[in-house]
This record gives sequence, structure tokens and C-alpha cells, in this order.
Amino acid sequence: MVPPDTLTATVTIPDLSRLLNPRAVAVVGASSDLSRIGGQPLRLLTEYGYRGKVYPVNPKHREIKGLTCYPDLAAVPAPCDVALVALSAPHVPAVIEQCGKAGIPFTIVLSAGFSEVGAGGKALQEQLIAAARRHNVRVIGPNCLGVLNLRDNVRNGFGGTLQLGTLRPGPIAMVTQSGGFGFGVVAVAAYYGIGFNYAVSTGNEADLTALDLIGYFLECDDVETVVAFLEGVADGRRLIALGERALELGKPILAWKVGNTEVGRQAAISHTARLTAGYELYRAAFRAGGFVEIDDIDDLVDAAKAFHARRLPRGNRTGVITLSGGAGVLLADRCVERGLTLPQLAPDTGARLREVTVAFASVGNPVDATAHGYNDQFASYNDVIRAVLADPNVDQVIARVPRGSAAAVWARGLLEVLRETDKPLLLNWPSSPDDNGEVMAFLEQHGVPCYVAPGRTVRALAALTGFAEKKRRYETRGKRALQRAEAIKLDLPASASTLSEHRSKQCLAAYGVPVTREALLAPAEVEALTGPPLPFPLAVKIESSDIPHKTEAGVVRLGIRDLASLKQAGREIAAAAREHNPDARIAGVLVQEMASGLEVIVGVVNDPYFGPTIAFGLGGIFTEVLHDITHRFAPFDLDTAREMIMEIKGAKLLTGYRGSPALDVEALAQTLARLSWVAADHADRIAEIDVNPLFVRAAGEGVVAADALIVLKGERR
Amino acid sequence: MVPPDTLTATVTIPDLSRLLNPRAVAVVGASSDLSRIGGQPLRLLTEYGYRGKVYPVNPKHREIKGLTCYPDLAAVPAPCDVALVALSAPHVPAVIEQCGKAGIPFTIVLSAGFSEVGAGGKALQEQLIAAARRHNVRVIGPNCLGVLNLRDNVRNGFGGTLQLGTLRPGPIAMVTQSGGFGFGVVAVAAYYGIGFNYAVSTGNEADLTALDLIGYFLECDDVETVVAFLEGVADGRRLIALGERALELGKPILAWKVGNTEVGRQAAISHTARLTAGYELYRAAFRAGGFVEIDDIDDLVDAAKAFHARRLPRGNRTGVITLSGGAGVLLADRCVERGLTLPQLAPDTGARLREVTVAFASVGNPVDATAHGYNDQFASYNDVIRAVLADPNVDQVIARVPRGSAAAVWARGLLEVLRETDKPLLLNWPSSPDDNGEVMAFLEQHGVPCYVAPGRTVRALAALTGFAEKKRRYETRGKRALQRAEAIKLDLPASASTLSEHRSKQCLAAYGVPVTREALLAPAEVEALTGPPLPFPLAVKIESSDIPHKTEAGVVRLGIRDLASLKQAGREIAAAAREHNPDARIAGVLVQEMASGLEVIVGVVNDPYFGPTIAFGLGGIFTEVLHDITHRFAPFDLDTAREMIMEIKGAKLLTGYRGSPALDVEALAQTLARLSWVAADHADRIAEIDVNPLFVRAAGEGVVAADALIVLKGERR
Repeated sequence: MVPPDTLTATVTIPDLSRLLNPRAVAVVGASSDLSRIGGQPLRLLTEYGYRGKVYPVNPKHREIKGLTCYPDLAAVPAPCDVALVALSAPHVPAVIEQCGKAGIPFTIVLSAGFSEVGAGGKALQEQLIAAARRHNVRVIGPNCLGVLNLRDNVRNGFGGTLQLGTLRPGPIAMVTQSGGFGFGVVAVAAYYGIGFNYAVSTGNEADLTALDLIGYFLECDDVETVVAFLEGVADGRRLIALGERALELGKPILAWKVGNTEVGRQAAISHTARLTAGYELYRAAFRAGGFVEIDDIDDLVDAAKAFHARRLPRGNRTGVITLSGGAGVLLADRCVERGLTLPQLAPDTGARLREVTVAFASVGNPVDATAHGYNDQFASYNDVIRAVLADPNVDQVIARVPRGSAAAVWARGLLEVLRETDKPLLLNWPSSPDDNGEVMAFLEQHGVPCYVAPGRTVRALAALTGFAEKKRRYETRGKRALQRAEAIKLDLPASASTLSEHRSKQCLAAYGVPVTREALLAPAEVEALTGPPLPFPLAVKIESSDIPHKTEAGVVRLGIRDLASLKQAGREIAAAAREHNPDARIAGVLVQEMASGLEVIVGVVNDPYFGPTIAFGLGGIFTEVLHDITHRFAPFDLDTAREMIMEIKGAKLLTGYRGSPALDVEALAQTLARLSWVAADHADRIAEIDVNPLFVRAAGEGVVAADALIVLKGERR
Repeated sequence: MVPPDTLTATVTIPDLSRLLNPRAVAVVGASSDLSRIGGQPLRLLTEYGYRGKVYPVNPKHREIKGLTCYPDLAAVPAPCDVALVALSAPHVPAVIEQCGKAGIPFTIVLSAGFSEVGAGGKALQEQLIAAARRHNVRVIGPNCLGVLNLRDNVRNGFGGTLQLGTLRPGPIAMVTQSGGFGFGVVAVAAYYGIGFNYAVSTGNEADLTALDLIGYFLECDDVETVVAFLEGVADGRRLIALGERALELGKPILAWKVGNTEVGRQAAISHTARLTAGYELYRAAFRAGGFVEIDDIDDLVDAAKAFHARRLPRGNRTGVITLSGGAGVLLADRCVERGLTLPQLAPDTGARLREVTVAFASVGNPVDATAHGYNDQFASYNDVIRAVLADPNVDQVIARVPRGSAAAVWARGLLEVLRETDKPLLLNWPSSPDDNGEVMAFLEQHGVPCYVAPGRTVRALAALTGFAEKKRRYETRGKRALQRAEAIKLDLPASASTLSEHRSKQCLAAYGVPVTREALLAPAEVEALTGPPLPFPLAVKIESSDIPHKTEAGVVRLGIRDLASLKQAGREIAAAAREHNPDARIAGVLVQEMASGLEVIVGVVNDPYFGPTIAFGLGGIFTEVLHDITHRFAPFDLDTAREMIMEIKGAKLLTGYRGSPALDVEALAQTLARLSWVAADHADRIAEIDVNPLFVRAAGEGVVAADALIVLKGERR
């Protein structure tokens, strides 16, 4: 048995401050050609304001770019915090060893030619890892673009993006598994006013991984938001734990995951040979934790702006204020599409709005204050915004903005309004960035996010709302201990094997999962029956771990209503079993009650990356045609189980809809939670569980597993 | 009966050239305060390069801004093409009359206070319309911001946006039902390099409508793309016809429809009192015709750029070329999500790519040419792009772009590559717009669309692909005559009424829709039966147009297997009918075969805006829980019917999936088409048809309508 806490073990976060802000850097494989990989860092570390020392290392040179060049790391005079390595791959493991001997704690290996190029490279990478472990050197890379600290002007890497003068610092950290793409994003974001204090290209992640970096940056005082460009992570459980930590700290992780479609996944494998869990598990992790999933540069920029204001809404009730009716209609549509509600404003607010708007303004929600009648250059438009922000029915506000020369004066007044409230206000500008760029910049400096595209304004607000909701949920329930029963010892065979139906059900029943009443009889016992072992109607199946797919093997008979039929069924399926697989070990004939209800399916897969995960969906077409399935990570309790049930598209079939009664959602939630406990407690042994079908009966009448299958991994020696 | 062609009658498009480019403009209600609505146009028409004459009209002034001011329109010396009206609403109808007398063909009424403010305003608007009709004056507005012709510097309106110097001409026309918002979009788009030759704010559309303008602009030589910001249109059929014309001309209509959610719709009603059809009908119109649906400024800009290149792909097979693996993975994901495929490249292409890339490049699709090894400053990267564009498996290409100083040289070479092909190429830049802005501008001038955000690049390409596909479909089938049987005369009662089941089915059967075999008997005839009128099992129902909801009324018995039960059922349902509604006229007892198969639902609604529309979906949970319904406009033929069937989410239930056989899709398509003919031929009488359920049987075994209901409008006198 696995104690549940090892599934989410806390990992000690290494102190990376000297990696990010080294006192001195040795450039191993320094080149006098400053356009080459070994030459670029010399320019980057000397021309962009880095205040530490730079030591080129190359036995071929005495001096490069006015810097003394040393033959090897041992010869470097001062203590270095980082060795930047640009040698060809075969030389790298020896350099790591030298780092250890020279007391250099971090290396950044830019060199390619490791695990991404096949078997030979893989062996080299193993040597690199071994050297690092042996000499206690932490490694970024290999096959990476380096480490960027724009706060302290450390440009420790190579590539065109690092040479841009336009990069700007800011309270965001980028962790990217694709250096070329991720660093490019940092450059583009700078153009849109979004600065990054740090950016790290993790390359092949021989040692330090994207997760290590995310974990470190979450704890940094100068990082409010972490952006992670990910192709895949090896430790899904740690990703989940980081999501919880992000909620705890109130710092979002903007997760940009790629390789999600089959075509994309294949491209990712050919890119970095990174194998990874299915996207649905990432989505489940992102949905649960402090992640905001993004999928383009725009939503990175937009979300970063929204979070930078450091105001989280208390709910999703949104006030929309405009100066033109069309914009109000549009914003209302977008809000509803993103799950934001437009509440009715309180009567007091309506009355107040009447006072501060012209007669033909519309004081509902959206408010259309109209652009007319602002002879005061829109100073009184701030009274409109004030009134809506103060409304007790409103958690957050989107306001369209006056344009032209009036904007600057109005903006100053707006800051006064914002001082009176902690609710988020996002502004949607009716004009292009060049029209009121200075006013926008002024407002953004003062924590008021500004957007030009209306839809993007709403999307950013929805990101804020979603994060805030997860944070609230985490605070009320994520911190408390899991509400669950104790682990149960199961009697499992030692070898990798498939358990028969009856035995599988016994394991589930031990955890309180309701299963069909049933009797396991020898064929002769069936023949000798003088009455039914359970009330008719009955189902009869062969019990054999060697015949997992019973229906296909013809060893199931359903709806048996008398003793003669029962005996005949016993004979028939025994014969069918022999014919299907003459070598199958037959444990007996399983006689069980006929169950009925709405069919649902619960599956457990012990994912190599994410550990035991539970999939839940309605049976039949819902899973096979509509792929209406939801996932969670084991173990979880009733609250999470209820969420799973409510988030499938067909949830109404369970909760009742026109002409169909409510079913026993509570018993179903209990069963989902209990299955998650089985999966988590025995994660060292259980590879898969398949409960199909699980019948859900009317409210109060419970659920029952009509069939179940457990697949075991072999016992670890 | 309605001849089918009147449903899509062609509307004569008025010649609006003098409205858009008037030789002279009279400003009625001219104000000496140039910041007021009556004053702004005087500035806009004199300071922005307009070359026509401007005549202020206001009896209170002799001169404004150096222009002679005239007491009334009759006094204006030269012929005017447009009168711009800024008087308060009650004075407007008289001005229209004066326009007629002065021979001014167009008025633009900026004044508010008409139908948007309630009953009094509505009456004024009626007077305005009457005056316009009587005097043959065409009207834009009232309650609008005016007409903008940036090609000829005509800024015929008011508002802050019109005063911007940054607006720029270009081959796009904007038609907007929200002047404030739509004109703002024109200003923002200019910032992103997108110019508009024309923009018209249609206001209350008392006379000329958004559809008139769209129709006119489609035919203009200096308009390649029409953008329409719509809250709703009165003539849905004309919208559909415009969509077909757009396909014919190869000019997209970028449709930005708002008021689509219930909250948005309510906001739209309070904005312009515009009532309109449900969004699902707009979506059906947009999907069928030459529309590209957009929902934010970004996709307007992105699509406009893509279409401006004037290259339409022959299919959706997309080659992706990158210089970094991560970008390739990302672009592959986005392509797949948007319905674009990434084909395997032809063997010749692979061989060619091996020749022109470095050894560790990846020559699959996506191609990762890697940024290394381009010592020629990326000149040879063009060989990579050339090879993929030439691949016979590829219809279109997205390429990432080299950054930095190399980009300019490379870009010039790229134009050579493009001369060799007519396939679309969209570029995704890895850097911010300020980094290589000049190169981007150079390329866009030469018809190569450039994007910074990868996801937006793919979305723009998908818009192009979708339009091209619809155009191809239109060319192969849209132009040919509808493949259908002749109209059938139906014997319908003259009054508004609901037809009973049997009578409804007779109407459908006349059109070849298969219905259950059934016999309508008097209660006494049922009692007198000596054998079943049809083979058992049978269904028995009350036939009464006064009891449309039979199951709820308890007047249905199913699965009857013998004569005694049949007679008893007849008695029971007759009694139940009397109890349910003592006044119901009972036409008899309907005895019908029991039908079975997969349940689908077909509904016809004769929409007040779009005319007869057909809705199709799977029954039960698919419609009630999953809202899996698709719509088309009647009449249509088999091709369209097949499309409807294939586009519902549950289509696999019809076409067959794991363990479930293929059903008679062909017979279902026949039935959908025939129902559309009934609806179209009798659109003057039929308000609704409900076929629920229609059973679909196994392939080759047809379909059968088990229940049907037709609701009639009264005959027009």
C-alpha cells in the first residue's frame, strides 16, 4: 500500500538565486567569433549592463574582447556561480566534473547533441547527469538557449532574442521548454508592455526541470506571475502540487501547453523526444490548480495585465458600462459566453445612475451612459463607474472609455474612484493604441488594465474570475485534510495479473463501493441447486481471470427467470468458456442479481506521469461518440466527486431534466470518491480499474457496480 | 402556394455612388459651434480634403466658418447630392420633403429621437419614411453617425472617430448598425494597417438598411471585403442571398453579429428596439454563404489581411514550416483544432528538404528547419518554403520567419518564391511588430499576410480555407437549379388552425415523406372490428386537432397485440379525450402500425425574418440536454440535407459506430429535403411542422414519421 501523501510529496526547492544572478560567469568554449554560440554570451554579458565578472575559457585564446581568456576552469581566478557551456556535446560531461572541482554550483549547457538526437546522445546525457550528481553541480539544459535575468541584466545564453534592446523587466517569470519560441514570446510581450524579470529555457531538462523553475519562481518576491510554455512534464503530481501552491500564494501560473492534438504530440516527440501524458490529464490539473490556460501571445499579455492589478473579484457578477449601445450588446454577449453573469443593479444604483446620466441613457446592465451630454469632459462619467463599482450585486466591472482629449483628465479622476474599492475594473478602449497611448500607459502603471479588443477584455476578466474562484475554493476546502475513510488492506496476488470480476468486486466492496449481490458456485453446485441462490431475475457469467472480455467470449447470460434456465445457462457458458479458451482457469459460475439504472462508466488509470487518475462519464454514446468524460487525480473526496458529476455535458441525465427524474447523485459521488481511494492506496499495485457499467438508480436508491475489472502490476521487489 | 423563387427574390440595388461621393453636401441645422453635431460636419468636410461643395443651412446665420449659410434648402445655389440633417427630430420630416423639392436624392439623418425612444419617436419615424417615399429621397439613419468615404475624403457625419487623422483608406467597406462602435473599429483597424474606403452607420434604418449597403458594396470595384457589424436584420432571406453573391464574387462578408445571447439580445432591444431572429438562424446563414463570422477586432484585422492577398487555397492541407521545434508543435495543434490537416509531404519534397536544410533539421510536417546553419542569412530558407509550397499534397503554407537583420534580405527573396505559385502563404513572425515592422509592411504591401501571434495566424488561414471551401461548393452546386420534385397542392383549411395527426401526415405523405400505415376509424367502427385493420402490434390514438399534445392528454395506447385490447384502448382513449377537453372535436380513433428505429426530430418554423427554416436533431437527450440541433433554410435538396445530417454531434449514431450499425441516412436526407419543400411551397400557410419522432431504420429500410403536426396561419385575404 502507498500512503496517500507520497502521491503528492513535497519536493525541496533548490535555491537558484546564484544561477539567476551570478557573481561571475565562466564561458566554457568561448569563441573569438562573437556571432557564434560560444561568442555571443561574451557580448551579452558585457554590453547589456551585467555587473558581475565574465571569464572566457578556451585554451586556444589568451584574450577575447578585452577579457583575459583562461585555458580551463581551474585557472579561473575568482569563484564563479555559473559556467556557461558552449562546447560540443562529447566534451560536456568532463566540464561538469571540472565545475564540481572548481566549486561552481550551476552550469547552463547550451550545446545540442544529447538525448534529442538518439541513442548516442542519450548516453552522453546520462554521463552528463552522472557527473552532475557526483560533483553536486546543478544543470540547466543541455540543448537550451540559456537563462535571462532582465532585472539584473544577466543575459546568460545565446540567440537573436537575447540581443534585443527592447526586452524589459517586470514581475513575471517565463519557464519554457522551447527556448526559441519562449524567448520570442518574451520579446513580443515587451512590445505590449509586459516585462519579465526572468526567462529560463530548460532544454532537455537533464537535471533542473521546468517544474523546478516554476516552483522556485512562485516563491520569488519579484515574481507575481509565472508563464510556463510546456510540451510535457515527467512528474504530473508535482505539477498539481504547484497548482495548489499557486492558489495559496495568489500567483497565477499561465500554462501554455502544446503537443495536445495527436499531430502536435507527434511533432513534440520528434522535437524533444519527450513522452508525456494525454492532454486531458493536463487539463484536469490546470482546471484544479492555480493555472490559467493560455494558447496564444494575446491571452498571455491580456491575463498578465489583468493579474498585475492585484485585484481578485469575489464572484462572477459583472457590471458593464459603455458609452455606445452596440458595445454594450457585444460585451454582454462575450461575458455570458465566458460564464460571467450580468446581474440586475440594485435599486439605489439605478437611482444614482439616473442622477448622473442624461435622460436617454440606459441604466440597466449593461449601462449605456451614451457619449452625449458630457460637457464636463467626462468627469461625471466617473460617477457612473463609481456607482456601478459600489453596487452590492456587482463583483467586477468592465467599462468602455471616453476617447480623445477628454481621456487624460477623466483618467486621473478614475484613480480616485478606484481608491474607494478593491473590486477589479478593466477598461476597454474604443480607440487604437496610438490615440490615447499615454493615458493607457498612465492607467496601467496605476494598476488599471487597458484593452482595445472588447472580446479580449472579457476573456482577461474571465481569467481573473476563474482564478479567484479556484483560490476561494482552495481556501475553504483545499487546505483541510481530505475527508476520507482509512486505507483498507486488499488481498492481492503478487504478480502482474487481471483479477476476475468477482474478485475485483470484492476489492471494491471492501472500500464500500456497492456491487451486485452475487454467488460464486462451482458448475456442479449450479447443477445441484434446488432453488435460486438469489431472487430471480439473475445474470450468470463465467468467473475467470483468463477471460476478461466475457460478452465477446459468449460466457454471459442475462435475465434468467427460472431454475431450469439457470442450470442450462451454467452448462452453456461453461462449454463456451472451454471453447473460447481451453486453457482458461475457471474459478466457477458467477450468479448475480440483475441490476438496472442509468449506465455510467468509471475508469482508473495509473498514469506513468500523473499517477492514479479517475475518469468518469455516462456510458455508451456519451463516451464513445461524444467523448463526454471528465478526469480527476486520486485520492479526492465528495466535493471533488460532485464537481466531476456536474461538469459532464450529460449531467442533466443524472440531476433530472424534463420528464426524467433525479438520480442518486450523492451515492454516485460517494462511489467515485471511494474508487479514488482504492486507486490511491494501492497505486503501487493497481494499474487499471474498469467499472462498466455502474448503474445509478433513482435518488435515495443508490448505485451498483454490475461489472468490474482490476488489472494489477507486479509487486515491486 | 408560394413559388419557391419569391423566397429569395432579388432586390434591385440602388446606386449609392452619389451618397458616398457627393458633388455637394448641404448641412441642414448647421451650427456655428463647431463642436456640436450641426457644427462638426462643417469642419470634417472642409479640413480633411473633401473636394465637393459644402452648404451650411440655418436661417439664424449668414455665414459659418467662411461658408455662406443659407436659410433653407431651396436657397442653396448648386445641386446637392446629400443633405446632412442635424435638426431635432420633429423638424426632420419637413426637411426630407424639402430635399425632394430641391432634387437632393440622399439625406443622412444624424438626429436621434425616433423609433429608439418609444411611441412618439416611432410616429415621427413613420412621417419621415412617408416623406421619403413621397419625394423619392433615400435616407441613411436617423439616429446614425453618418457616412465615411476615406478614398475621397468625405467625412459626412459627426463624432470623435471621424476627426482622427489616422483613419486610412483601403479596399474594405464597413456597414455598422452601431455607429459609435463600428466607426471606432475603423479607427482601431487603421492602427493595424487595415484601411476602409467606406464606412456607413445605418442607425434606425428607416429607409436604407445594412443589407442595402452590403449589397451595394459587394458590387463596388474598390471594395474587396465587406465588414458588417449587425444587431439584426429584417430580411433574413436577403442576407442569405447576399451570402451567395459574396461567394460568386469571391468577396467575403466579415459578419460581426451581436445580441446573440439572451442577455445580449435584451441589451440590443433596449439599444435600438430591433427585434430579430434567433442567433442559430444567423449562424446557419453565415455558415452557408460567403460570410466569415468574426467576434473581435483581432479577427477582423487578421481575416482582412489574409483575404487581401487574393489567394484562395484549393483545400485544407497545410504545410507548416518553422525555425524552432516548439513553434511547430504549437502551430500543428492550432491547425488541427481549426480543422486544417497536416498532410505527409511527398517523397520528392522530403528529399529536396534534406538537400536544403542542416542534418538535424526535421523534414516532416511541421518542418523544423532550425535557425542554425543559415550562414547565407536565410536565403536558402526560401528553398525550404519553395519546396513545401510546390508539394502536390499541400494547399497552403504557414511559415515562421527569420528574425533580426536577416529578415529584410530574406523577404525580398520570398517574393520570388511566391511568384511561382498561387497557393496562400501566411507568415508568423517570432518577433514584435517594432522589431521587423518595415519588413512586415513591405511584405504585406506585396500581398504576404504577416502575423505575430501563432494562433491568430492559423485562425486567419482557417477563415480563408473555410471561405474557399464554400466558394468551391457554391460553384459546383450553388449555381445549378435545386434538385427537387414539383410543388404539390395541399387541401388546407382556410383558417389559422392546427391539423390533426392523420391530416398532417397526409400532407407530408403527399410530398413523399414516409409516414406510418394507419386507419382512421369512428369509435363505433373500432367496436365493430372483427380483425385488426393493420397487423399487430398497433398504436391507438385519438384524432383531434383540438388535442395536439396527445401523450399528456392520455389519449395514446401503444404496443397493442390483440383485438380485445384494441377495442378497450379505443374506449379508454375516447373517454380520456372527453375528460381532457369536453369540447374537443373528435375526428375518430387513429389505429396505426408500431414503428421503431432511431428517434430523430424534424421541426419547421416559418420565421418572421428568415422564412421557413428546418431544424434537425436526434431526439430526447440530444435535443433537450445537449442542444445538438442544426438548421437550414427551405427549400433545399439532398446535398444540403446530407450536410445537416453529418454536422450534428451525434451523427455517428446514424452513420454507425462501434457496435451500432449504419442507418438509412439516404432516406433521412430525402425526407429532410421533402419537408423543406412542403415548408417552402406553402410558406404562406404553414407556420410550423413538427415531426417527432421520425424513426430512422437500418440502411436500406427507410424512415417513417410516427407522429406529425402542422400548424397553419390563416389564409391571407
